[in-house]
Amino acid sequence: MRPDGRLANELRPISIERRYTDSAAGSVLIAAGRTRILCTASVEEAVPAWKTNLAVPSGWVTAEYGMLPGSTVPRARRERGQVGGRTSEIQRLIGRSLRAVVDLAALGPRTITVDCDVLQADGGTRTASITGGFIALVDAVASLRGALPAGARVFRDSVAAISLGVVQGEVRLDLDYSEDRAADVDMNVVMTGSGRYVELQGTAERQSFSRADLENQFALAEAGVAELTALQRDALGDEWPLES
Amino acid sequence: MRPDGRLANELRPISIERRYTDSAAGSVLIAAGRTRILCTASVEEAVPAWKTNLAVPSGWVTAEYGMLPGSTVPRARRERGQVGGRTSEIQRLIGRSLRAVVDLAALGPRTITVDCDVLQADGGTRTASITGGFIALVDAVASLRGALPAGARVFRDSVAAISLGVVQGEVRLDLDYSEDRAADVDMNVVMTGSGRYVELQGTAERQSFSRADLENQFALAEAGVAELTALQRDALGDEWPLES
Amino acid sequence: MRPDGRLANELRPISIERRYTDSAAGSVLIAAGRTRILCTASVEEAVPAWKTNLAVPSGWVTAEYGMLPGSTVPRARRERGQVGGRTSEIQRLIGRSLRAVVDLAALGPRTITVDCDVLQADGGTRTASITGGFIALVDAVASLRGALPAGARVFRDSVAAISLGVVQGEVRLDLDYSEDRAADVDMNVVMTGSGRYVELQGTAERQSFSRADLENQFALAEAGVAELTALQRDALGDEWPLES
Amino acid sequence: MRPDGRLANELRPISIERRYTDSAAGSVLIAAGRTRILCTASVEEAVPAWKTNLAVPSGWVTAEYGMLPGSTVPRARRERGQVGGRTSEIQRLIGRSLRAVVDLAALGPRTITVDCDVLQADGGTRTASITGGFIALVDAVASLRGALPAGARVFRDSVAAISLGVVQGEVRLDLDYSEDRAADVDMNVVMTGSGRYVELQGTAERQSFSRADLENQFALAEAGVAELTALQRDALGDEWPLES
Amino acid sequence: MRPDGRLANELRPISIERRYTDSAAGSVLIAAGRTRILCTASVEEAVPAWKTNLAVPSGWVTAEYGMLPGSTVPRARRERGQVGGRTSEIQRLIGRSLRAVVDLAALGPRTITVDCDVLQADGGTRTASITGGFIALVDAVASLRGALPAGARVFRDSVAAISLGVVQGEVRLDLDYSEDRAADVDMNVVMTGSGRYVELQGTAERQSFSRADLENQFALAEAGVAELTALQRDALGDEWPLES
Amino acid sequence: MRPDGRLANELRPISIERRYTDSAAGSVLIAAGRTRILCTASVEEAVPAWKTNLAVPSGWVTAEYGMLPGSTVPRARRERGQVGGRTSEIQRLIGRSLRAVVDLAALGPRTITVDCDVLQADGGTRTASITGGFIALVDAVASLRGALPAGARVFRDSVAAISLGVVQGEVRLDLDYSEDRAADVDMNVVMTGSGRYVELQGTAERQSFSRADLENQFALAEAGVAELTALQRDALGDEWPLES
Repeated sequence: MRPDGRLANELRPISIERRYTDSAAGSVLIAAGRTRILCTASVEEAVPAWKTNLAVPSGWVTAEYGMLPGSTVPRARRERGQVGGRTSEIQRLIGRSLRAVVDLAALGPRTITVDCDVLQADGGTRTASITGGFIALVDAVASLRGALPAGARVFRDSVAAISLGVVQGEVRLDLDYSEDRAADVDMNVVMTGSGRYVELQGTAERQSFSRADLENQFALAEAGVAELTALQRDALGDEWPLES
Repeated sequence: MRPDGRLANELRPISIERRYTDSAAGSVLIAAGRTRILCTASVEEAVPAWKTNLAVPSGWVTAEYGMLPGSTVPRARRERGQVGGRTSEIQRLIGRSLRAVVDLAALGPRTITVDCDVLQADGGTRTASITGGFIALVDAVASLRGALPAGARVFRDSVAAISLGVVQGEVRLDLDYSEDRAADVDMNVVMTGSGRYVELQGTAERQSFSRADLENQFALAEAGVAELTALQRDALGDEWPLES
Repeated sequence: MRPDGRLANELRPISIERRYTDSAAGSVLIAAGRTRILCTASVEEAVPAWKTNLAVPSGWVTAEYGMLPGSTVPRARRERGQVGGRTSEIQRLIGRSLRAVVDLAALGPRTITVDCDVLQADGGTRTASITGGFIALVDAVASLRGALPAGARVFRDSVAAISLGVVQGEVRLDLDYSEDRAADVDMNVVMTGSGRYVELQGTAERQSFSRADLENQFALAEAGVAELTALQRDALGDEWPLES
Repeated sequence: MRPDGRLANELRPISIERRYTDSAAGSVLIAAGRTRILCTASVEEAVPAWKTNLAVPSGWVTAEYGMLPGSTVPRARRERGQVGGRTSEIQRLIGRSLRAVVDLAALGPRTITVDCDVLQADGGTRTASITGGFIALVDAVASLRGALPAGARVFRDSVAAISLGVVQGEVRLDLDYSEDRAADVDMNVVMTGSGRYVELQGTAERQSFSRADLENQFALAEAGVAELTALQRDALGDEWPLES
Repeated sequence: MRPDGRLANELRPISIERRYTDSAAGSVLIAAGRTRILCTASVEEAVPAWKTNLAVPSGWVTAEYGMLPGSTVPRARRERGQVGGRTSEIQRLIGRSLRAVVDLAALGPRTITVDCDVLQADGGTRTASITGGFIALVDAVASLRGALPAGARVFRDSVAAISLGVVQGEVRLDLDYSEDRAADVDMNVVMTGSGRYVELQGTAERQSFSRADLENQFALAEAGVAELTALQRDALGDEWPLES
Repeated sequence: MRPDGRLANELRPISIERRYTDSAAGSVLIAAGRTRILCTASVEEAVPAWKTNLAVPSGWVTAEYGMLPGSTVPRARRERGQVGGRTSEIQRLIGRSLRAVVDLAALGPRTITVDCDVLQADGGTRTASITGGFIALVDAVASLRGALPAGARVFRDSVAAISLGVVQGEVRLDLDYSEDRAADVDMNVVMTGSGRYVELQGTAERQSFSRADLENQFALAEAGVAELTALQRDALGDEWPLES
């Protein structure tokens, strides 16, 4: 029995609010249970130094991640001296996941930075950042419509992500923080809307896992990401950037 | 004529949402026009090292301030290498302003950190942080009720703050960002609910000001802070920590 | 009664020594009682990056502030890891104050850095830095005479500063360190030689203050800055950069 | 056809030299093709601060990773200002992988740090660090023999790791750097000697992958890690810490 | 012929002003030609952590060195991010030189920090720091008189230092900055008042030197340090801490 | 009697292995007794910013030094936050010593960085770095043969270095760590193959030394460096860059 009564393969209630603020080109507040993250996408008409001299001009998509101090109890210290290993790992994951579905050449010589700031943390913040960050990114690209060549197809696919874990021998989808702490295995799966894998991160500090456990996890993850993709499509409505 | 049609002595619409998140002991979303700030207050049962050996044990209230990258256009860089001078100045101001109305001895040997994170910036973020931060602080102290001695009076007064400026020769209250950029003088006034001054910061990089200008600014500030105090009292209702 | 027998509105003895060293273009040793500060002004024929592409080329004036370790008891730690909030606040204040009286366009595309290093600290170091820094700045601009267009008027006004405080209910001018520690209110006022306000910083962590207290402080500050302006004019003699 | 003529499921030649230096308690030089890494394990009779107050005293195993500047062309910059995201990710991975097979309580209140320094880099440095680091760790634990309780079983299993990739549609084991750069998918698999999974990290920035691709990768990885486990056992001989 | 007409073995005019400020326990302004350095010695009743658990309690003497920004043209950047290699080298040299003549056990469990801040730089700043720092240190120890056991002899000897160089084939004593830039060899010699060597630092980036050059340099250095020792003794008068 | 039975003027066994790795242009493993250092020399076709605008284009040679954590007991902490004073001093010494024998103009507009990483430390690491670094530098220059003008003579001389100390009143050559800790005087001498001095660093924190001691040290150092030069020449064989 899970703490909130969910089935092993059941997601927490997800809510997605687009245009949460109006300064950034894309701005999405995504909630998964008590986890709440503000994802903004900002456009800059320039690319990193290492991209400036390429023969074919091409854009860049990157991500940053942070937790507001009040998002956890006890209070999380601001990372002002040095970015911690966990933060660095998460923001690299988000960036790679978003780039996996973007045609950077079609984006043209500009950078979009997706910032994922956790307002409240209750497990699954990195995966919710990817799911919400994709929507903010779509809105930011939509804001460029006049600037992109007619017919430019920036998105090759959509992307969403979910966490899983093995708790007391049971594979469960979308762990909250109390389950996460008790889990023997911690898996994050990033997949495209078309059902292909983009990133896998599984870790078993406490109890290693068998090939069979892996198969179970993938089955749950595939169903979970399909649900999230449907929610992304609903949220974006006519802005959904892919053929249906 | 002001950009949004306000009178010179008129505040922007203010909204205050308590318990915006449920992790921190106090959590307030305050909006002043398009400016939107999440103020959380977290309690830690310890005091800074320099306070541990005092004869009379006494608590501490401190503040931190940050702007989310997506809160401005262009995107604000995260302060991860070194805290900038402006940020440091603002968070010191917020901390001093809140401490000015708190009886630290009554708080007991604990630290409350008020984090003010700007979700959207349109001028007046430091003053809104003080006005909203006070409410989060009251909620955090209320959460300690069982732990404080009966009859402990932690608050000696309430505190709120407002910005002013001289734009095209006219003294105006509560500037938005477009006015702030055009202002010759930039003044921040922090006052108690009882109408006394706590902090003054006036700066005139472009055009110095006369004693008469100053008098005008104080008159407007006093009226503005009185309005804000009334809004704080409404928001807190029965939790208002002072005699009426 | 003040510790050194002064009247409430009396400045400490001020001494100003120009050309204290001969390496920097301007070099002034200013003393106010036991407080002693070396202000040097160095010229660089370049401007900060953010100024290089402006349509109208224009110069820059900036300031840095530091305390020598032996300037206080106990010894002050060198700020080698990270510049502290107090230092950052002070050097921003000095820079803004000096820029308020300078016509940056008339200065041409060069940067003058005014360094204020405290050799001995006994209260009022930030205000003495402004008063002395102005003289070093005038000397540095004078050293450019051949390089500036004939008739260029770099200075629009002079600038000086003084501290005040409320000690045991009495408003006092130019506090030394022992008074500063006992003060309920701490106010710094920066004014031009023509009697207009440039910066105000008032803080009352211990005991808030009324509008009437403010009026008293302004009256004392205006008289104090007028005295300091006369001393600056004496020190500069024929180099005084303004019409008399 | 692979650059060096290997079959898709073939490891590069592996060499393992124990006691390469004699200062650290464990010291192993592992080579996989041209990749060459010095893994040392140092023992300290203390544990991190957050472990000191646990009810049951327990030890700690951690890892650090670095690349010597001359290990690559062009020269790799030393990470002296801030540890980069990639380095931080790798050393966290090595630490978790080693801890997954260690009974920290049996180790007692001491810390073993495994340092993996890359003398020459040609792909697969993080996985070779785990495979070689395990041997250094075994040697370090062996050096403690007198200090551990009789019969203490510090190791629950052995651990080794291998990289895989999809290059031109073919799943290949143990990529060298030239293959790694051309790969669409990059997978690192950490497994125990008993054939269970400890860590999975798969990333597909260029081309997402199907569930079937995944199955192929796991099959190759399982065979590769089995080979590496046999080599570890040979290298350790009588010091192999597990029942056979 | 030297730029200022001195003989090859002639020191620049030296002036020593004790009690230049009154905050630190020792405070000496030393000038050698245009070079001017403020040396202060501050006492703290504590020792560094690595000294706290020694069987025989013993004190510590350490040094810090800095150049004020206005001490050179062009302006020297403040070392606020990271202490540069040159600064670190110099302050380690000063510290070792002073400790070489101090009986740390006789000093008792306290730390004296000698800060050498260069007000104006014209060559020879590190050696003048040692010569002046010794006097500040003597004054600081004298201020402890009541706190030290009767008859405690803190100083075993005196210490002073001088620079030399080979310019156009000639060995010269006490180079100013213009000679220093032209020198092929740069040598710093630290000696005791009794004529023994404490530190030697010779460097020949441009033109290596022979054993015979070395002998010449030592002869000049010995005479120069003897002169400096006499000046130290004059400056200290009755405070000279050694038998005569 | 020395710990390993050597005579006072006897070097430890030296071994030199060229082409230890094949990534860097020069790669030398040098051992002196238990001390073992990997010296690599990497070429970059660019020069530091301050060299780019010189009238005569000229190259640069620089050095970095580091100790692997496992090179000592207890483990040496990685210098990831800030480079320590000792490291900075050593790498500056190595760089100056190598540049002293190089004609930077003949090298052309490129930078060679010599990295000296200590795999095992047992005294004398800075001097062995110079001796080994010279060989790596020769190999790196040799790799440029096609790129340099015909007949270019990059090396004016060879360079090697040795440490000495005074232990129990006896001057000894090439101290190991146990002797180094017991030494009253610590001297490092860098000389050319032609017998001229390049760098001298002598330090006597414990016990000052006389002119006669100095003479003894120089005699031993000269003989020691002559031996090292012969070993360098043997190792380089036909690549020896100087006339014989």
